[in-house]
Amino acid sequence: MPYSRTVELDGHIIDSGKMETSFRVIMDMGGSFEVEEFNIGRKKTETSHARLLVEAEDEETLQSIIHELHQNGANPANPIDATLESAPEDQVVPTGFYSTTNHPTEIRYDGEWLSVEDIEMDCAVVVDDGDDPRAYTKVLNAVEEGDMIVTGNAGIRVNPPDRPRDSEGAFGFMQGGVSSERPSESTIRKIAGAIEETKREDGNVLAVCGPALIHSGAREDLAALVREGYIDMLSIGNGFAVHDLERDLYGTSLGMDTEELDHPRKGHKHHIYTISEIIRAGGIEAAVEDGLVESGVMYECVKNDIPYVIAGSIRDDGPLPGTITDAIEAQDAIREQAHQADFVMMLSTLLHSVAVGNCLPSTTRTVCVDINPATVTQLVDRGSAQAVGMVTDIGTFVPILAEHLFDERE
Amino acid sequence: MPYSRTVELDGHIIDSGKMETSFRVIMDMGGSFEVEEFNIGRKKTETSHARLLVEAEDEETLQSIIHELHQNGANPANPIDATLESAPEDQVVPTGFYSTTNHPTEIRYDGEWLSVEDIEMDCAVVVDDGDDPRAYTKVLNAVEEGDMIVTGNAGIRVNPPDRPRDSEGAFGFMQGGVSSERPSESTIRKIAGAIEETKREDGNVLAVCGPALIHSGAREDLAALVREGYIDMLSIGNGFAVHDLERDLYGTSLGMDTEELDHPRKGHKHHIYTISEIIRAGGIEAAVEDGLVESGVMYECVKNDIPYVIAGSIRDDGPLPGTITDAIEAQDAIREQAHQADFVMMLSTLLHSVAVGNCLPSTTRTVCVDINPATVTQLVDRGSAQAVGMVTDIGTFVPILAEHLFDERE
Amino acid sequence: MPYSRTVELDGHIIDSGKMETSFRVIMDMGGSFEVEEFNIGRKKTETSHARLLVEAEDEETLQSIIHELHQNGANPANPIDATLESAPEDQVVPTGFYSTTNHPTEIRYDGEWLSVEDIEMDCAVVVDDGDDPRAYTKVLNAVEEGDMIVTGNAGIRVNPPDRPRDSEGAFGFMQGGVSSERPSESTIRKIAGAIEETKREDGNVLAVCGPALIHSGAREDLAALVREGYIDMLSIGNGFAVHDLERDLYGTSLGMDTEELDHPRKGHKHHIYTISEIIRAGGIEAAVEDGLVESGVMYECVKNDIPYVIAGSIRDDGPLPGTITDAIEAQDAIREQAHQADFVMMLSTLLHSVAVGNCLPSTTRTVCVDINPATVTQLVDRGSAQAVGMVTDIGTFVPILAEHLFDERE
Amino acid sequence: MPYSRTVELDGHIIDSGKMETSFRVIMDMGGSFEVEEFNIGRKKTETSHARLLVEAEDEETLQSIIHELHQNGANPANPIDATLESAPEDQVVPTGFYSTTNHPTEIRYDGEWLSVEDIEMDCAVVVDDGDDPRAYTKVLNAVEEGDMIVTGNAGIRVNPPDRPRDSEGAFGFMQGGVSSERPSESTIRKIAGAIEETKREDGNVLAVCGPALIHSGAREDLAALVREGYIDMLSIGNGFAVHDLERDLYGTSLGMDTEELDHPRKGHKHHIYTISEIIRAGGIEAAVEDGLVESGVMYECVKNDIPYVIAGSIRDDGPLPGTITDAIEAQDAIREQAHQADFVMMLSTLLHSVAVGNCLPSTTRTVCVDINPATVTQLVDRGSAQAVGMVTDIGTFVPILAEHLFDERE
Repeated sequence: MPYSRTVELDGHIIDSGKMETSFRVIMDMGGSFEVEEFNIGRKKTETSHARLLVEAEDEETLQSIIHELHQNGANPANPIDATLESAPEDQVVPTGFYSTTNHPTEIRYDGEWLSVEDIEMDCAVVVDDGDDPRAYTKVLNAVEEGDMIVTGNAGIRVNPPDRPRDSEGAFGFMQGGVSSERPSESTIRKIAGAIEETKREDGNVLAVCGPALIHSGAREDLAALVREGYIDMLSIGNGFAVHDLERDLYGTSLGMDTEELDHPRKGHKHHIYTISEIIRAGGIEAAVEDGLVESGVMYECVKNDIPYVIAGSIRDDGPLPGTITDAIEAQDAIREQAHQADFVMMLSTLLHSVAVGNCLPSTTRTVCVDINPATVTQLVDRGSAQAVGMVTDIGTFVPILAEHLFDERE
Repeated sequence: MPYSRTVELDGHIIDSGKMETSFRVIMDMGGSFEVEEFNIGRKKTETSHARLLVEAEDEETLQSIIHELHQNGANPANPIDATLESAPEDQVVPTGFYSTTNHPTEIRYDGEWLSVEDIEMDCAVVVDDGDDPRAYTKVLNAVEEGDMIVTGNAGIRVNPPDRPRDSEGAFGFMQGGVSSERPSESTIRKIAGAIEETKREDGNVLAVCGPALIHSGAREDLAALVREGYIDMLSIGNGFAVHDLERDLYGTSLGMDTEELDHPRKGHKHHIYTISEIIRAGGIEAAVEDGLVESGVMYECVKNDIPYVIAGSIRDDGPLPGTITDAIEAQDAIREQAHQADFVMMLSTLLHSVAVGNCLPSTTRTVCVDINPATVTQLVDRGSAQAVGMVTDIGTFVPILAEHLFDERE
Repeated sequence: MPYSRTVELDGHIIDSGKMETSFRVIMDMGGSFEVEEFNIGRKKTETSHARLLVEAEDEETLQSIIHELHQNGANPANPIDATLESAPEDQVVPTGFYSTTNHPTEIRYDGEWLSVEDIEMDCAVVVDDGDDPRAYTKVLNAVEEGDMIVTGNAGIRVNPPDRPRDSEGAFGFMQGGVSSERPSESTIRKIAGAIEETKREDGNVLAVCGPALIHSGAREDLAALVREGYIDMLSIGNGFAVHDLERDLYGTSLGMDTEELDHPRKGHKHHIYTISEIIRAGGIEAAVEDGLVESGVMYECVKNDIPYVIAGSIRDDGPLPGTITDAIEAQDAIREQAHQADFVMMLSTLLHSVAVGNCLPSTTRTVCVDINPATVTQLVDRGSAQAVGMVTDIGTFVPILAEHLFDERE
Repeated sequence: MPYSRTVELDGHIIDSGKMETSFRVIMDMGGSFEVEEFNIGRKKTETSHARLLVEAEDEETLQSIIHELHQNGANPANPIDATLESAPEDQVVPTGFYSTTNHPTEIRYDGEWLSVEDIEMDCAVVVDDGDDPRAYTKVLNAVEEGDMIVTGNAGIRVNPPDRPRDSEGAFGFMQGGVSSERPSESTIRKIAGAIEETKREDGNVLAVCGPALIHSGAREDLAALVREGYIDMLSIGNGFAVHDLERDLYGTSLGMDTEELDHPRKGHKHHIYTISEIIRAGGIEAAVEDGLVESGVMYECVKNDIPYVIAGSIRDDGPLPGTITDAIEAQDAIREQAHQADFVMMLSTLLHSVAVGNCLPSTTRTVCVDINPATVTQLVDRGSAQAVGMVTDIGTFVPILAEHLFDERE
């Protein structure tokens, strides 16, 4: 095979699976390889180093292989500076631009490695020239004419986090997939521990919540978690907010006790009435301040200055005032939350969890909880080494989580 | 349409859906009808009465319609005695034998209505002649030559229980389907209430359990429910028992703490070793008596004289001594449990729940819990008016149920 | 019970379930009733008539019951004109406004019944005064100050379509729920028949499609259906369009044969590159006209002037030019499609199907196809009497559907 | 760590994942290691060799680690003969007996390596002494007093098949998990190719079928596959057989056309009548020979001398004559089928597929088809390197498979 290039792997390259993945990528894509050098860590605490000569029949295939290896942390040897090209128009990137992974990434610029700021997947990398050069990500639609964009694969270093190597630490548990057959209570206790650890380190906890959380009766416990300071940001849709407010407005005022399960009818009318009442009041904050709304998750957010993003979608009724109906604007708001988060809980929502997940670096610890295994698998598979999935009932998960957190504190 | 017969409906025939179902059956099957008489209960406490003339193009269609109406509680007017024919051979029923529903059923014999004993679905009805005539069910393979078997539709009265008419009582809640979006904790509290009611009335609680219950960490709480007298009978498979025993034998002896989730490997070896150890000990009872097994669900059953049935299946390893490997014998053992049960909990097992469900009359209160909505739907749809389904995590369900039951008692 | 009102039911009120539902509603909500008059259709072709006196302990409960009965087609006796109130501000409706169902609805105005135009659920009804008075729906956020809005329940007639009474016709099949255990090929043939019937009657077929359709290999057959005139409108998201275009741009250009399944990697890069290329080309239409895109569903839409709506969502990459990123604008575009559709196929997308379903009157025939039973159930349960659900693999459904339609035509 | 042992790995130990797994096992279980030797295959066609010194704090931990490594193909260096101990009683194995994997395994006996015959998982290995020594598996309940059983880990070599290294061959496709989002038709064509290849090599195809296959309308196509010689053995339950026969007996005789979907009622009566009729006829073979049954899968099996096993279960009605009701006997019959099979199709049944899968060596090519992803995942995860999963509708899968096979032949 006439076309070749050398790549290097470093770290726990065998037990992290990098070596295996690299071999597979090359073979799957029709290339071949020689191992030019291989120094194995002789003990489990030592790292390894390998250098592979990758070969392919044509340059295009070689490029594809190198690109793919790259995504998995095999970086070209003898690095040169990254290639930069200017964006020809707003929202138009140069051909062959480098599309990011969600792993920590560096760009070689002027012989130095710049860490790419705000790394998230599927972005272009823009390099700002100057005395203090910076590299950072931009989504396609934010690209502006003249932005210097990284193209090709040269001068780029991707560093996927090693998967945890032992069972120590809060996220050493539950490696290897998604299952409804794990010990549920013990798992929830571990998650509670990870939240406590995050809070002890002054980290930010972001909760991404779907309406099923309200239906399944977990509203009061989630509101308590907000009130008690365990949740620092909320990322939701219009549906979640409406259901939460509806419980306040109609769960009580019509004399029905939702605890007793004898709400006679689904009362879809209340849903639409709630929206109407909140519009009339001038929005959620106004409704809380005026005393119209007196309990619930939104109430606690307003009362405790917990910021929330309500991202609109095409299935919304209403929507409530404050809902960001433009998808691009909503993504920007979600992106800001995601970049500030140290710990993310994705609770019974696929749409919003995917949106948040798209903006997360692979190093942010994430817990996905849903009763549908397919949803959990889809979220956990999106490439975070730190994602933990749990298939359980959100209506029992949140109360048990709250119990562990509150017990611990006493 | 030249062929016709008259049927009668009594009770809450509109709000129970009987009337609607009857009309649909007739139309779906190609017949027609006239309403000869209809007296509607004018208030919600009054019953109604209707008499329909059912017509069809041919006798065979008419028969099919009448049969189907019958299953739904529309009984032929002007009853005559049921037709009885002798079984020609062992396991061979007369052509046109009457195949039972799981609803309370009466047979007209000598001008009197005999209540059919041990009603369950898909059986033949045998009538014992004599001074004190009896009617009772037999499954096909239990039929003996010479048994007098009911054939045709004449002289048979089926009485489906009215669905609950209001939201009172333990099972007035959760009518209308299966969902994971109900308030989970409130629902579990209601189920706890129904169990307490059953125990207050000296009723028997049968728990049908699958291995997921052990995997998901609910073993200790189920064992406590057995110990504290909330469970009177256990219906399980070999897998459940082995997993329960394995936790005792290997959860401790190898120094691993299953609570900490750091059991390094699935340890399938332990599964097969457990079976081997119990065989060596001479069975579960012997293993408990000898002190080999010191905790868990099986342990509590042995210590508290709670009878259990271990029904074998083709996917079993082993099996453990005491497992009933013959399906017919196992069904007989399950049948006996089912007939004694006043309240049945089906916990995370489809196979065993279907087997138990096949033997239950439609009047036995039943709760089906599984994380898979399809499983819950399948179980609840099998025709019991008293079945309640809950889509939740068995690993959080059992602990919360136990908490409610134990709290209540204090 | 001191508070009472009289309601009337007409039509096939027993076999359609209206009578049963009415009784249950009253009892569930704590009221009682007397049947003042009941004339039953004596034959299956005759309609019935009932008059009920509904009673409750207080006016509020009575109102709720009457409202709920109303939604199910039990209309108040002795109708008076509907109450109209002026909207106090933009987007603010009068308190107690009437929130619509998706059933055909009439408003009594000046002693005449006005049919409500463009009926869909959860809207306000606006009445335009004048020589030729009209009533029509408006969603909350479209309400303008001064709009005359219907409030209360008086003067409103809701007419839920009778469920099909026999097995005739294209949609007489598959009543009663969602299952993966129906004869798949026969069902698909029936759906093909319903599409042909729609086309013969010059009706419009709207296809709502999710990305799984492309992944599962049904792209070429769906493109053929568009080309051959079986699909008149397309409702999709950005993901569907990108996947479709990516197959065209990268399925071929890199020499990979997607038919052979040996696409080595997911090639997420291609996804983002596709968006970039289409942006560069100036949009989908431009990309087709310029010859950049030469096949696929979007290609056929452009070439055959089939209108499509691409509704944005927060999980989108890009998005493609032409995607409507504002949820309200997207809903308006979807609403227009929905109102023109005579037959809707919802193919492997929950989000877009719910959005379309929200705008459909209950009389539009709808088929929901998904491999996830929960998705199908959720869509079919949204209240259309004409919705048929099929749990199957979209990757085999579309090819078999196309085969039936093309065979039929020859 | 004072306790240590040396193990060796050979083959494609990196790209097959063996090396990674070995490292992880040691670390997960609390041990440590040194890489004493590592010769990497420099090209993709060369194999690698590694020697690890495994260390642990105590002998028990070391044993557990060595055992676990063993299961993954890391074999102890400097092999000695396997330890043999005599079974003390029927069904009782010596303590510490070696429990098999489903991978090809060798036992060192008298300095020679004996290949273990009929390898399947969770068995004991019995060695027959004599001039021509043999090693073979026995399930626990088949062990007889005096059998010489392998204990411990010494003298045992496990050889997990390398996972396919490239995309060549019928099973090179679809590596890496289970998904409903693959191209369905292309995948089915590949499966058809694998069946043809098996038949060209005079291999045996075993079909394991559940009742959903009949409900979903695939009966006629499966019957055709049997008739045309594509299926050599059938492994089913009572339910499958009854449904198949019921279609023959009542699908036609009552004048209902199942193709038209207008079977008015589920007709559960027909199910029980079918069983009764077949019992009366003296069994399935007799019913076919007498002309009572004239079509379907069972009919084709009888007519074409295709052997079938009907394994009983506790949810069966009846059962039909010929059903093996004892689970142990049924497993023995299934085991015989499994050992003869070269290609296994698991079609819409979890119970029977698990039972067959338990008896399969990891080298048998297996396809699992179900509409429920959880079922497919569970089956594919059971350790076969050759298992392919497909999430699709069995009612469209079988017709398309048959079409491909029949087309190909013409």
